[in-house]
Amino acid sequence: MCAPSIIETVRDNLSRRRFLTAVGGSIAATVAAPASGLGQQQKPVRLAKGFRDVYDLTHTFGPKLPVFPAFKPVEIRQKFSIAKDGFFANEVTFDEHTGTHMDAPVHFIAKGGTADTLPADRFFAPLAVVSIQSRAARDADTTLTVDDLLAWEKAHGRLPAGAFVAMHSGWDARIGDANRFLNRDAKGTMHAPGFSEEAARFLVQQRDIVGAGVDTLSLDKAAADKFVAHLALLGAGKYAVELLANLAAVPPAGAMVIIGGPKHAGASGGPVRVFAVA
Amino acid sequence: MCAPSIIETVRDNLSRRRFLTAVGGSIAATVAAPASGLGQQQKPVRLAKGFRDVYDLTHTFGPKLPVFPAFKPVEIRQKFSIAKDGFFANEVTFDEHTGTHMDAPVHFIAKGGTADTLPADRFFAPLAVVSIQSRAARDADTTLTVDDLLAWEKAHGRLPAGAFVAMHSGWDARIGDANRFLNRDAKGTMHAPGFSEEAARFLVQQRDIVGAGVDTLSLDKAAADKFVAHLALLGAGKYAVELLANLAAVPPAGAMVIIGGPKHAGASGGPVRVFAVA
Repeated sequence: MCAPSIIETVRDNLSRRRFLTAVGGSIAATVAAPASGLGQQQKPVRLAKGFRDVYDLTHTFGPKLPVFPAFKPVEIRQKFSIAKDGFFANEVTFDEHTGTHMDAPVHFIAKGGTADTLPADRFFAPLAVVSIQSRAARDADTTLTVDDLLAWEKAHGRLPAGAFVAMHSGWDARIGDANRFLNRDAKGTMHAPGFSEEAARFLVQQRDIVGAGVDTLSLDKAAADKFVAHLALLGAGKYAVELLANLAAVPPAGAMVIIGGPKHAGASGGPVRVFAVA
Repeated sequence: MCAPSIIETVRDNLSRRRFLTAVGGSIAATVAAPASGLGQQQKPVRLAKGFRDVYDLTHTFGPKLPVFPAFKPVEIRQKFSIAKDGFFANEVTFDEHTGTHMDAPVHFIAKGGTADTLPADRFFAPLAVVSIQSRAARDADTTLTVDDLLAWEKAHGRLPAGAFVAMHSGWDARIGDANRFLNRDAKGTMHAPGFSEEAARFLVQQRDIVGAGVDTLSLDKAAADKFVAHLALLGAGKYAVELLANLAAVPPAGAMVIIGGPKHAGASGGPVRVFAVA
């Protein structure tokens, strides 16, 4: 977090015009993640006038984060130390679809685009946050429906062209407890919300979006037996971001998402750094 | 992008169960970097209405990228396939300081900040690109000096508060040829430009910056026997980004850099996605 004096200096010296005309947002101080990165919501900190807020929508990527069952948690191994080598560095191994991460079309679509080849302009998008939190609190198998999208539009206007549509189910509040997050029943079936197939098809057929995101582990509800929302969205060349953080804090309309997507060669997806500016 | 018939087939055949049980490793196949990923300059992408140009300052992160000798190239192993598992995914292993990557203060400073805890506001910064390309073409051991910084200021005004200062040496044009990039002499000593210690100290003592970047592998010139620029910058709590791409295309002043910094727990640094908007 910036000391007030630094913020003042920024305000005095930095041209607001340059950034506001470029990405529609500005600099904001944020609360540093705790060491664990788990279980805490980030609060935006309002910067000096002329600037707006930055929200970090990324969970700290550690081995305790819940993962989809096919995948293993990230491994972070110290390989060099200042005492022995003069510098400190780790080696990191991850399955691409862990942490706050992107699904590129090729994750499910044989000839779909890889994450490293997606055009950079698609990573700057108007952000629509559609909350189904109250319903999800009662029914973990609920889905985000076409009606939810239409209700959002009734409140905020038609989804902007090139939008990124994020489902806020409230699941990120469970992030510090993997059992609660995965929410398995006695038979081992997981229960968490997702996009309905109809909503996914509506977004790609009736609206103009770059991608969609969720604060759960999967675009599809966890108890689904087919990846219908994935296939509708990725099959239309859109990308997804899963395990988003901090959506409760972001305005439902009017923010811009900026996605630092993975660029390793041939990526089916991978960990991302996601910011919203509002 | 898929033809609808293919999508239907995938949908009909793919089940969640296959996804959940697909934990057996497929044959580890190294994913080759696409030829297009190396040695190409990206043209700015014109954003949709209301926005301006986005530049991608990130090299595609593949095993052929040059790496600093202490580190090994990224490993990208296919672990799941659509044919066998219903989805495609890789496992990725990297040393943190490979690819276009961040150095957090803790990389060299025992109690310095880790990358995951750096405040997000520092990842949005006015970008100053200081070119020493013509001199570097003649002398690979040259450094970016205080005079270079003052010359930039004479042309563009004082460095904005909270700036990110990037050295453009032209080295990224060598990215497709690791031997040319590393530029070893007969004794094996590498030669590539970097920040002088004096310039690094000037930036942290006389100006207000968030960090500094280079299009080479190291803040320090490659032939240096000490990490003096690293220690001056990281020791002052600044971060660095190394192996930046595409700096030749970015305006030297007036752009804003947005750095999708690594957020794995306890990161000494790691691969980043870096954009400039101008």
